Amino acid sequence: MTNHNSPIGVFDSGIGGLTVLKEIRTLMPNENVVYFGDTARVPYGSKSKDTVMRYVRQIIRFLKTKEVKAIVIACNTASAYALFESALDEDIPVIGVIDAGVKTACNVTKNKRIGIIGTDGAIQSGVHAKMINRIDSQISVFGKACPLFVPFAEEGLFDTKLTDGVVEHYLSYFKPLDIDTLILGCTHYPLLINAIRRYLGDNINYVNPAYETACQLRELLLDSNMLCDADNTSVCEFFVSDCAKKMISFADMILGGENNKITALNIENY
Amino acid sequence: MTNHNSPIGVFDSGIGGLTVLKEIRTLMPNENVVYFGDTARVPYGSKSKDTVMRYVRQIIRFLKTKEVKAIVIACNTASAYALFESALDEDIPVIGVIDAGVKTACNVTKNKRIGIIGTDGAIQSGVHAKMINRIDSQISVFGKACPLFVPFAEEGLFDTKLTDGVVEHYLSYFKPLDIDTLILGCTHYPLLINAIRRYLGDNINYVNPAYETACQLRELLLDSNMLCDADNTSVCEFFVSDCAKKMISFADMILGGENNKITALNIENY
Repeated sequence: MTNHNSPIGVFDSGIGGLTVLKEIRTLMPNENVVYFGDTARVPYGSKSKDTVMRYVRQIIRFLKTKEVKAIVIACNTASAYALFESALDEDIPVIGVIDAGVKTACNVTKNKRIGIIGTDGAIQSGVHAKMINRIDSQISVFGKACPLFVPFAEEGLFDTKLTDGVVEHYLSYFKPLDIDTLILGCTHYPLLINAIRRYLGDNINYVNPAYETACQLRELLLDSNMLCDADNTSVCEFFVSDCAKKMISFADMILGGENNKITALNIENY
Repeated sequence: MTNHNSPIGVFDSGIGGLTVLKEIRTLMPNENVVYFGDTARVPYGSKSKDTVMRYVRQIIRFLKTKEVKAIVIACNTASAYALFESALDEDIPVIGVIDAGVKTACNVTKNKRIGIIGTDGAIQSGVHAKMINRIDSQISVFGKACPLFVPFAEEGLFDTKLTDGVVEHYLSYFKPLDIDTLILGCTHYPLLINAIRRYLGDNINYVNPAYETACQLRELLLDSNMLCDADNTSVCEFFVSDCAKKMISFADMILGGENNKITALNIENY
């Protein structure tokens, strides 16, 4: 049975979702959290809806064994597939990283021209455009898949000459389109923000869904009286489906070298 | 029960192994083949030995349901983990893509200085160096992981200015090392050969293990009287764990647009 001191479940295809976790911990430092990264099957962005949905259901079954009070799908691809068509029917709140970013983008755009960058899966799903046009059908939406951004971020190539090259390769698409807002539609992409900003300029609103999602989660818990006790000492547990060294060092980098304890498990058993 | 007309099983983490399949079909056009690509869990190169070995065992169980007479692990990472330490004990021959390439490299090097490029997993395993030094302990071996080469190849960026940049990023390591031989230790890498050759020059022997492995397989079948009948009409079956569009178009590109029939299955059930 869950109660207000039960943990929040957060998961991602890998470790990109740690950027979302970081925003949640900054905003709600007392909350207990269980994080799961599907590092054995990362990435999701190039995989089909059926496969990603099977993985999502396994992970939700696992998180429920930890009696979580709410779940954040901290992965744009999985959010795109799982949430837009109400493919999930759970007895606890499940939120994704798309909804909050889309709302913010609709609020800040002046010229009603919004760009989205993301994985193949997220962009092909068309979910951002559909959600934006539900809010305001006058907004033009331009999506561009940037499959190399995740491997670049995982190689630590955040801000190099090579990064400038790959940013130009994908983002030249936006140059003639006169967008004033860009949604960073993949949890890894904020890591490349310097190179992206250098190429597209400072006159664009860059929307980071990780931050917006943490705000949305806080509001949801507040509204349902499910925030933890103010004197709770936060416990964070980390689980992965594969404990490769590279993943652990990436986690330590994002979470600030706290020497985080990470447990590996076989997610196929759930 | 298998016999000489039973199919050859070939598998890879994804579709890179199709380059090996292509060499097998060129050399032995009458053989029946069952190919499995683990597209739901690709890539293996960044994952741990335990996880990759669990996947390898599932795939071998699946291929055995197809009554294959021999298995080719057409993936350097899986070959590195599965074969060097005899982690497999099967009643049919199982060969990898490392052995044959290593032997060729040892034969062609004049100055006894060999370079290897591959995934994180393959390079960190040190398997190439160990196998080379078993053959000739005087040979110096220099390994370099090139994690971005696979995503570049899967993006179709075989021979662009951006490819030149990423090639220089990794291969500048070899410039002062005076190697005369380079093993392309990942099935995707031959697709980038133009950019690699342009950067390192024509005075290096480039060893493509896909071709060498097909030759080794033919010899093995010949020696054990297991080549198929000379008038056999080849049947090739393709299976994947995820049927994403991108994967299918990549397969058609490598296999020559034959509109190949590909069946998806849940490999976690094996």
